[in-house]
Amino acid sequence: MAIRFDLEPELAALVQRTREFIRDVVIPVELACKGSLHDAPDAEDIRRRLQAEARAAGLLAPHVGERWGGRGLDVRGQASVFEEAGYSLLGPLALNISAPDEGNMHLLERVATPAQQQQYLAPLAAGQVRSCFAMTEPPPGAGSDPRALTTAAARVAGGWRIDGRKWFITGARGAAFAIVMARTSGAPGDRGGATMFLVAGDNPGMQIVRDLDTLDHALFAGHSEVRFDHCVVADDAILGEVDRGFEYAQVRLAPARLTHCMRWLGLARRAHDLALAHVTTREAFGSRLAELGMVQQQIADNEIDLAASRSLILHTAWVLDTGGDAGTASSIAKTFVSEAVGRIVDRAMQMTGAVGTSGDLLLSRYWREVRPFRIYDGPSETHRWSIAKRSVSSFKKRGHA
Amino acid sequence: MAIRFDLEPELAALVQRTREFIRDVVIPVELACKGSLHDAPDAEDIRRRLQAEARAAGLLAPHVGERWGGRGLDVRGQASVFEEAGYSLLGPLALNISAPDEGNMHLLERVATPAQQQQYLAPLAAGQVRSCFAMTEPPPGAGSDPRALTTAAARVAGGWRIDGRKWFITGARGAAFAIVMARTSGAPGDRGGATMFLVAGDNPGMQIVRDLDTLDHALFAGHSEVRFDHCVVADDAILGEVDRGFEYAQVRLAPARLTHCMRWLGLARRAHDLALAHVTTREAFGSRLAELGMVQQQIADNEIDLAASRSLILHTAWVLDTGGDAGTASSIAKTFVSEAVGRIVDRAMQMTGAVGTSGDLLLSRYWREVRPFRIYDGPSETHRWSIAKRSVSSFKKRGHA
Amino acid sequence: MAIRFDLEPELAALVQRTREFIRDVVIPVELACKGSLHDAPDAEDIRRRLQAEARAAGLLAPHVGERWGGRGLDVRGQASVFEEAGYSLLGPLALNISAPDEGNMHLLERVATPAQQQQYLAPLAAGQVRSCFAMTEPPPGAGSDPRALTTAAARVAGGWRIDGRKWFITGARGAAFAIVMARTSGAPGDRGGATMFLVAGDNPGMQIVRDLDTLDHALFAGHSEVRFDHCVVADDAILGEVDRGFEYAQVRLAPARLTHCMRWLGLARRAHDLALAHVTTREAFGSRLAELGMVQQQIADNEIDLAASRSLILHTAWVLDTGGDAGTASSIAKTFVSEAVGRIVDRAMQMTGAVGTSGDLLLSRYWREVRPFRIYDGPSETHRWSIAKRSVSSFKKRGHA
Amino acid sequence: MAIRFDLEPELAALVQRTREFIRDVVIPVELACKGSLHDAPDAEDIRRRLQAEARAAGLLAPHVGERWGGRGLDVRGQASVFEEAGYSLLGPLALNISAPDEGNMHLLERVATPAQQQQYLAPLAAGQVRSCFAMTEPPPGAGSDPRALTTAAARVAGGWRIDGRKWFITGARGAAFAIVMARTSGAPGDRGGATMFLVAGDNPGMQIVRDLDTLDHALFAGHSEVRFDHCVVADDAILGEVDRGFEYAQVRLAPARLTHCMRWLGLARRAHDLALAHVTTREAFGSRLAELGMVQQQIADNEIDLAASRSLILHTAWVLDTGGDAGTASSIAKTFVSEAVGRIVDRAMQMTGAVGTSGDLLLSRYWREVRPFRIYDGPSETHRWSIAKRSVSSFKKRGHA
Repeated sequence: MAIRFDLEPELAALVQRTREFIRDVVIPVELACKGSLHDAPDAEDIRRRLQAEARAAGLLAPHVGERWGGRGLDVRGQASVFEEAGYSLLGPLALNISAPDEGNMHLLERVATPAQQQQYLAPLAAGQVRSCFAMTEPPPGAGSDPRALTTAAARVAGGWRIDGRKWFITGARGAAFAIVMARTSGAPGDRGGATMFLVAGDNPGMQIVRDLDTLDHALFAGHSEVRFDHCVVADDAILGEVDRGFEYAQVRLAPARLTHCMRWLGLARRAHDLALAHVTTREAFGSRLAELGMVQQQIADNEIDLAASRSLILHTAWVLDTGGDAGTASSIAKTFVSEAVGRIVDRAMQMTGAVGTSGDLLLSRYWREVRPFRIYDGPSETHRWSIAKRSVSSFKKRGHA
Repeated sequence: MAIRFDLEPELAALVQRTREFIRDVVIPVELACKGSLHDAPDAEDIRRRLQAEARAAGLLAPHVGERWGGRGLDVRGQASVFEEAGYSLLGPLALNISAPDEGNMHLLERVATPAQQQQYLAPLAAGQVRSCFAMTEPPPGAGSDPRALTTAAARVAGGWRIDGRKWFITGARGAAFAIVMARTSGAPGDRGGATMFLVAGDNPGMQIVRDLDTLDHALFAGHSEVRFDHCVVADDAILGEVDRGFEYAQVRLAPARLTHCMRWLGLARRAHDLALAHVTTREAFGSRLAELGMVQQQIADNEIDLAASRSLILHTAWVLDTGGDAGTASSIAKTFVSEAVGRIVDRAMQMTGAVGTSGDLLLSRYWREVRPFRIYDGPSETHRWSIAKRSVSSFKKRGHA
Repeated sequence: MAIRFDLEPELAALVQRTREFIRDVVIPVELACKGSLHDAPDAEDIRRRLQAEARAAGLLAPHVGERWGGRGLDVRGQASVFEEAGYSLLGPLALNISAPDEGNMHLLERVATPAQQQQYLAPLAAGQVRSCFAMTEPPPGAGSDPRALTTAAARVAGGWRIDGRKWFITGARGAAFAIVMARTSGAPGDRGGATMFLVAGDNPGMQIVRDLDTLDHALFAGHSEVRFDHCVVADDAILGEVDRGFEYAQVRLAPARLTHCMRWLGLARRAHDLALAHVTTREAFGSRLAELGMVQQQIADNEIDLAASRSLILHTAWVLDTGGDAGTASSIAKTFVSEAVGRIVDRAMQMTGAVGTSGDLLLSRYWREVRPFRIYDGPSETHRWSIAKRSVSSFKKRGHA
Repeated sequence: MAIRFDLEPELAALVQRTREFIRDVVIPVELACKGSLHDAPDAEDIRRRLQAEARAAGLLAPHVGERWGGRGLDVRGQASVFEEAGYSLLGPLALNISAPDEGNMHLLERVATPAQQQQYLAPLAAGQVRSCFAMTEPPPGAGSDPRALTTAAARVAGGWRIDGRKWFITGARGAAFAIVMARTSGAPGDRGGATMFLVAGDNPGMQIVRDLDTLDHALFAGHSEVRFDHCVVADDAILGEVDRGFEYAQVRLAPARLTHCMRWLGLARRAHDLALAHVTTREAFGSRLAELGMVQQQIADNEIDLAASRSLILHTAWVLDTGGDAGTASSIAKTFVSEAVGRIVDRAMQMTGAVGTSGDLLLSRYWREVRPFRIYDGPSETHRWSIAKRSVSSFKKRGHA
């Protein structure tokens, strides 16, 4: 039979080593910083140290090709490894598979020229530098609806001039370069054409305006608002071809959406384990908490949500790996998993009671981290709208029941 | 990579032929009888005719071995074919893969002696006869909790005498034989030992007391209460070995639970298609229904529930096929799918409005059919309790997070 | 303090007498017919007998004025009495406060001429005749969206000629008269004007085409499709004034929506009591069901839904009684209560297990009855749409937060 | 009719003045500090200034009697005023009706001696000092289950010596006095007897061990862990009588639970208004957000949750005011409102998208604030357990349906 869920031995071993690395190396650091490097003055040192240990363990950037130091894992392989990495909030950072760098590596590997790969991908995959992806704009610019893109790039002598404003740009502060989406044809409101540009972090035309004080802290360097003001780049800053930016964005977004699911699934499993550790040791009303029916219901619902999330991720990964149209599958996975992860962490907090809302456990940190996932990479409403439209269109094609 | 979801060509072809058979042969009959043969005087004729057509099409009883006329589909193969069959309420009957016969064939194939197989399995697989499975008892007997089993079998000269009462015995009326679970050691309340007996339908000690007027009509001949009163059987009526009945019940129940999921998933897909047919052709407030956001949300939620259900079924099927411990997986699948199917059909009815609550569509029939699935084969509460206990026990084994 | 929830003594006594009447007189009949008079050949006799007993007990039609034999209960008074009546599926019929007659009495009392009241209201309130309300039309006619009204009335010598088709007309079969909504100006799609006509049941221009086989059986005589074909009526058949029909529909609908809530709340309470009777007497896994945490959760959620439903009904009743704008309040109450009642009955069925899905308890009947309530009198989606529009409009008026 | 929901004119005027005070005085401060005084060095100054303004406006501590500077509002009166105050996170602090001071005033007004009232209640009601309530203990001490109380008070010459440990003690840091619950008879695990003691903030036997870093910031001075080590108090430190502490806790808890509901309902309304401000001004995919069906559904669900919460609060307030048994009513209100408020704020955040998860709106602060409310003052599970037990016991008393 063709349908199967087992891992080939080499991958199983990698998963196991990742699990041990997270447990032995990463979690102690996570506990020490209470899950957040956000205000840690030595955040960059910690990042470098963790990545050095991952490199030594042969675990760094396993999704990129071997020539860039990785293992060329396909999407299904990523699913199992990234879930293990996600078991700690710092795990993805340690393995250099965190957003936005992970998705940027994916994009550069597929679209960049050899020279661009040497210049940008090589140090990024090695953890020597960080990057950011500048697409989202403040209203009325591009958010859920990419057609609203207002940042524009105009031809100038020897290159392009980019002007506009972006926000929620993850990792912008300290990034060695940005991949910037700018309109090169059409006008805001119609689709037109967009182009991706590689902009060096020290380009004086790109300035960080401010940092957004968001609920989440896990993504390194947080989220910033960035202004492009007469930001001039040379022709070789173009990633891929002019006016094909929306197309490349899809190359990046569908898998990036799914790698988010993988990492957060790992964190949901951790939250569930933290709750289990609590309810198997605490008592109330003369019973061990884990033996009370309403607690058992929450445990079971967590297991159901974990299993359904994992199955949907694996199925979507297989569609992506085999070149199928992953549009519906990835929207379904993203919507279900982002909501399931939220439910799991919320139940875990409820099971741990007051202490779970405090800094004594990591749950209150996790609870903040996972909430935005129902919004970024397309809010649930946008994905449901897209799923419904495809469902209707597919129904019309195949005829009535 | 090992993880994959594609069907081998032969299976894909079988799925396609099943789909066409359901569409061309079965659905017209279903529409004519409005989804219920319950009060049809010619129900038995219809059953025989549909099964004859399935046999001619090479689709009858595909789950049993070739020597019994089937194709020996493994559980993953069943998943795809049974879902197609379930697309019509009469599909499983037509293919002879309906409960309880399908599960009884499975059990007889694994546990019965060659003579028993010749006597019972052969005509059952061929659709010449029907059967029933007599386990559930009225309170305070065996329901969710098998330890409460009160029907008892005592040794008599040359055989056994069975006394007790069973209810919700599906297909008892007209069954050629029953597989009867009776206590052969211990007492109600402790586990003790149970034995399975093959009892001929014309045994005077087995009497149908009454038919239960249940919500559902799809299972042929409905559900009856049956009395065993000095029901004497010979030694060769024992299925398997004495006192191993609980063990055989597991052989039957875990896959039977999953085949229910497969069939109902097909029906949920049909309900969704019926709703799509409605919302793509009706208007309100100047818009096509399918273009209203609240309808789109229901369409999307149906697609999500369908996809998650299918993924969980396939994963559990793989666990069963590869001999893994399917306890948690099948409890998770049963709980999720039974609830998801209920949500899907409910949303489909809501999308179709008043007409969906009437006999003009099949939805109101489907809505009644799927509700008991959250109760039989273990109510959601019992499965959640079991999932939670295994979750806690697994956590204790692997140590703290 | 002005806010209060206590009943004045006279009303409290009426509530108590209603409760006893339901328990002693109505429930025995309900049990005998298993909650459905639908196929009972003596249904009309039973109706007359129950109503005679209610009249003797001083409980008949308590919502109409004393001159029509009632007590002139205001909406808050109805809330308490109707909930008690609803505790049995036959209670509202026994008290002559069932849809559509109850709403028709309300409308006739407010809009009809004295002569019309004598002719139509008097015998209706006394239970001598039944009536129906013919508004809903098959697609593409008036459903959730009244502007789609296609049935039209045209002036002819000495009166009007009505042509069109209606469906889901509750109680049409055997009704002494119908209140018919027909377009008298404008065209389908715009609002235009509608007029209400009183049409005698024996008018040869009004014919029942067929009965719809719906999920529910509780509303007497079920739901029919009705054809108006050259249905000629005199001028005095006009109820109120020409072209004011949409306005009168509101007079009828907002309170009618709420009286549905009251009656179904009573039935939900009954379902909950049936579940309590089960779980307080049955055991599983060595515990009384009522002591298992997952059952307790369902019990508690039922109590919460019952309490919230009742509070919303009372608040809306007060708004209606004091002449406030009950638009939002009644949409909120209808949406919440219809969904809460569905949840309560569903949980009650789940708590009672397999037996609850059979005819042995009344729950499987109740479960079917309450489902359409989420659709008729405006589906949840239409009410949510209306609530949202009013919320936005109110926000715009009062300015930003 | 007796049931009514209108406010007497004097109360309506007070509500209106509160609304304006919140809008004009409090919200500007809230916006300036982004909803949190937690890390503000001038927090105490802000508190004093806001309370001085409230006093000048005649709005300070309206729930205490006139002799303590308040208005002696009954619980229903509090419901309307506290909801208005809760419309800003700082509103309850400004009006001196925040937990734990508000509940402590309530308790002191009912149980303290005149001398104790003069010493403790007078300055507390005037906002000159703050207080705390020390009941909850770290495991295995008293949490949801008060019988686990381990902090003990033993008789010593001229008074009592208290030893033990408390945590999640809101407002302990800087409190002028604590009301401390200590066991004076029995042993942990049985109920025994507890006594309440008034302990001065500068008693050297009471020490703050640490502050808990919780999700919420709104309660002034946060939550601390407190150690009682040879904490000696005189006899006149006893609040009420020896061994009646559990009883007094009920005097405090049932209304305190409800005043939480009132304040959080106000905040939920604010969150909803913040979302409305967003969706009525932003566009996506060519539509104003407020006109998209999935957004409208969220708006409507918020309105439904707001209305149901308010109705349940008012009903429970009436039960408390009229001396009824508010046990079930207050558990129902607490469970429903705490969950509804969580849903409302979560939907509001979802409607505002990425910006709602950032500090640019107050929503991300509100979202953190309301989560613990499902846990403190009894987690939902404990209340559901209590509701179910009372439901069963009431059913047994009144007999079968």
